[in-house]
Amino acid sequence: MTSLIPDSGLDPVRIDLGDRSYDIAIGPGLLDAPDTYAHLPTATSALIVTNQTVAPLYAERLARALAPRYPKIHTVSLPDGESHKNWETLNLIFDALLTHGCDRKTVMFALGGGVVGDMTGFAAASYMRGVPFVQVPTTLLAQVDSSVGGKTAINHPLGKNMIGAFYQPQRVVCDLDTLKTLPARELSAGLAEVIKYGPIADMVFYDWIESHMDALMLRDPEALGHAVRRSCEIKAEVVGQDEREGGLRAILNFGHTFGHAIEAGMGYGQWLHGEAVGCGMVMAARLSCAMGLVDQAFVDRLAALVHRAGLPTVAPVLDPRDNVGRYLALMRVDKKAEAGEIKFVLIDHPGHARVQSVPDEVVARVIDASVHHP
Amino acid sequence: MTSLIPDSGLDPVRIDLGDRSYDIAIGPGLLDAPDTYAHLPTATSALIVTNQTVAPLYAERLARALAPRYPKIHTVSLPDGESHKNWETLNLIFDALLTHGCDRKTVMFALGGGVVGDMTGFAAASYMRGVPFVQVPTTLLAQVDSSVGGKTAINHPLGKNMIGAFYQPQRVVCDLDTLKTLPARELSAGLAEVIKYGPIADMVFYDWIESHMDALMLRDPEALGHAVRRSCEIKAEVVGQDEREGGLRAILNFGHTFGHAIEAGMGYGQWLHGEAVGCGMVMAARLSCAMGLVDQAFVDRLAALVHRAGLPTVAPVLDPRDNVGRYLALMRVDKKAEAGEIKFVLIDHPGHARVQSVPDEVVARVIDASVHHP
Repeated sequence: MTSLIPDSGLDPVRIDLGDRSYDIAIGPGLLDAPDTYAHLPTATSALIVTNQTVAPLYAERLARALAPRYPKIHTVSLPDGESHKNWETLNLIFDALLTHGCDRKTVMFALGGGVVGDMTGFAAASYMRGVPFVQVPTTLLAQVDSSVGGKTAINHPLGKNMIGAFYQPQRVVCDLDTLKTLPARELSAGLAEVIKYGPIADMVFYDWIESHMDALMLRDPEALGHAVRRSCEIKAEVVGQDEREGGLRAILNFGHTFGHAIEAGMGYGQWLHGEAVGCGMVMAARLSCAMGLVDQAFVDRLAALVHRAGLPTVAPVLDPRDNVGRYLALMRVDKKAEAGEIKFVLIDHPGHARVQSVPDEVVARVIDASVHHP
Repeated sequence: MTSLIPDSGLDPVRIDLGDRSYDIAIGPGLLDAPDTYAHLPTATSALIVTNQTVAPLYAERLARALAPRYPKIHTVSLPDGESHKNWETLNLIFDALLTHGCDRKTVMFALGGGVVGDMTGFAAASYMRGVPFVQVPTTLLAQVDSSVGGKTAINHPLGKNMIGAFYQPQRVVCDLDTLKTLPARELSAGLAEVIKYGPIADMVFYDWIESHMDALMLRDPEALGHAVRRSCEIKAEVVGQDEREGGLRAILNFGHTFGHAIEAGMGYGQWLHGEAVGCGMVMAARLSCAMGLVDQAFVDRLAALVHRAGLPTVAPVLDPRDNVGRYLALMRVDKKAEAGEIKFVLIDHPGHARVQSVPDEVVARVIDASVHHP
């Protein structure tokens, strides 16, 4: 992983995947800049998929910006939140596509956060066995992580993101201005995924995050711009090497094994994904320490940064009678698990991650230590 | 398209798609022959997906044959029929996978006809964003067409096969013995797809079908074996050139534009897919004739062969008040339609097909002529 590259401020970040390559445009004012949608596939119709929170803010502006390219523009607005990332909501997208007579060339636009992006991507992958789509992420979490790399999915009551597809968008449009309307809790959730890139790939970036956390929390445009850009660069490099998670890509799931257990165990939508990942990273760092890979100082440093980002660092109790058992059961349905053996993303030294299994008793000790204040 | 190749009787037919290539094994007694499942991916568990009609006949035998390879073998049995090819039934597969703790390496086996194969394939494409699967088709239609080539899908109330994926199996196992238990109506439905390959690709095969129709209807094993093999060879050649239906592959949809309208318009499951395709081919031939591409003798010859296969050649009335309007509306949601313009697969000369639009008034005339006996 290369060290910090000075921002060009304008150039898009390229995801290099052969004939599935695409650009991530990053900057202010992109949502309705005329050039933003140049060279996208032409079609008779476009479908904007958004949610009931984002629609009043940006749906009309996006529709106006797309009008010169697409004669018919339809919009479907989904209920907001992780608890709606399921079959029923996905079907609202298919209903809209078919009711409006959308054909195999229809271009779909995902306007919103990670839930909208994941569901729109899976709908695009599946409608008529695949139509083109564009990500227009409006949350920090979606801009730095979920809109990039082609992972799409919905949840199943028994596991998060269990049903989906690898399906790459035509383009990702990160309009930094949309972050101005983001609720504080969502900003923090996004910072979890920004922080993530440090321990797994780039400690120079991690140092930068530490020294700019106050600016990020205050939504300084330059700081946010750099955080989005560097996060996308790192994700682009990882995804370019391992699109379908045969190996390396799994490091992007640092904090997610514990995090998914928290999300599913608490009930989808109770903890935001980023909040669960924030806490999950501290737990995964503690696990790395318990396995002798990093020292306690590294764990404390990460916990302090996660805390400064406004994120929880104390794990919730998922089952008062058998908390460890509940965590383990939920983690065994993680997609990285094999033959019931949970695989964890561990930090083997700061800036580098590995995927491995860990004895249950060590995991149990870490869970126990994580539900109480240190 | 090459002319008729003498049967080897043993060699598999190869689908050549780079790293997604696979074999179609064709022969008697394959279901529980020890070699049939050699070299498939290993895993802790396998899931057999079948339906309530096929399960009592073959599920146990398949499970026994797989036992040496997979420590845990689970079976899920779906309700039978096209009317169940929907989200609700698909979710039964995901429920089974998650309840049994199936991981990303789990191998799925589709044991049954086209509906089971299409749904299992889409479930395999989507579960944890993709697990390996094997087609074990037990109907003639599935052996000669739907199990080969990686098209998977479920229906939406507004259109057939609207939601799905291109996702190739690891292997297709066509055990010809399973055709012995096939209901007569299903045998006829399968013959529709066998007949299809003649007009679009190989009139030598078409001659052979004509001279062997009695043997096929009597389930002569050699005749059925040749029909399955030659059908798979033609399909392999077409799919090998155009996996994702950018162009050529659409010719395999000869008869399907009218056919899908009949299936959806009558209510899924009223007409079998093959019955609708049989009638749809006669309509598409009539349309080719109306466009001056083939002569009436060709239409009559095809209608006679479809009739001999026990298939309908007279189109149903879908709406007594506006039958043509109803057909056109249903065909406008066909996946080949673009900007509301229906694309038809026409025979431009016997053994060769093309895809093109046709003026609505010509289509209307053909629909009118098809609902009455000639």
